Amino acid sequence: MSSIFTKIIKNEIPSYKIAEEDKHLAFLDAMPLVKGHTLVIPKQETDFIFDLENEEFKNLWSFAQTVAKKLQKTYPDKRIAVAVIGLEVPHAHIHLIPISKMEDMNFKNVRLKLSDEEYQEIQNAILHS
Amino acid sequence: MSSIFTKIIKNEIPSYKIAEEDKHLAFLDAMPLVKGHTLVIPKQETDFIFDLENEEFKNLWSFAQTVAKKLQKTYPDKRIAVAVIGLEVPHAHIHLIPISKMEDMNFKNVRLKLSDEEYQEIQNAILHS
Repeated sequence: MSSIFTKIIKNEIPSYKIAEEDKHLAFLDAMPLVKGHTLVIPKQETDFIFDLENEEFKNLWSFAQTVAKKLQKTYPDKRIAVAVIGLEVPHAHIHLIPISKMEDMNFKNVRLKLSDEEYQEIQNAILHS
Repeated sequence: MSSIFTKIIKNEIPSYKIAEEDKHLAFLDAMPLVKGHTLVIPKQETDFIFDLENEEFKNLWSFAQTVAKKLQKTYPDKRIAVAVIGLEVPHAHIHLIPISKMEDMNFKNVRLKLSDEEYQEIQNAILHS
């Protein structure tokens, strides 16, 4: 069965995409810790990120760097933190999280509930950064 | 002034190193969340990881992949989680953290106090994995 992320890649589940390449996708997290919380994924379904073939692993991080720089421009007073946990959806993904303090990236925090309008506003801000 | 990590690179401060390349170093975190908590750094002093030049950024992550695979062999029943926070020491560093559950990578958790013997045991286990 396809992972939820593969369904997002195929547009079978709606998402707010902010960057896309042949083999990689970045979209806004549906359960964000903060505004701008983004997931970066390889389109190839791989459970554990470190199992990616070295060249693809490097290319995924290179894409994440491009996305992080866009987020940095969108949120110039934040730091773009990185997390890969690997215990949730079995499709490797990198969290990019604009934080002001360490506590902002505590995954036990209550997630934001954003309206479609708020998501679109964030998406537009990043796309035009 | 040199960052604390530059002092570790130069052996001016002792550390438990587990892997080293010309431009990169991995050593055990002195304030570990769990056993095997490792820091991966570029020897070049750069505050913000995403400011690394793209080729060097990719090479740093490639080195981190090698280190993570060693940690995975050392701790086969754990997942090697990744975190980059960027609010602490102003010298870019990647946390690699062998976790069993998400809570293991909560940076507010009390840090382990390990003896030199325990650190050496962990270092040896990783070096011989």
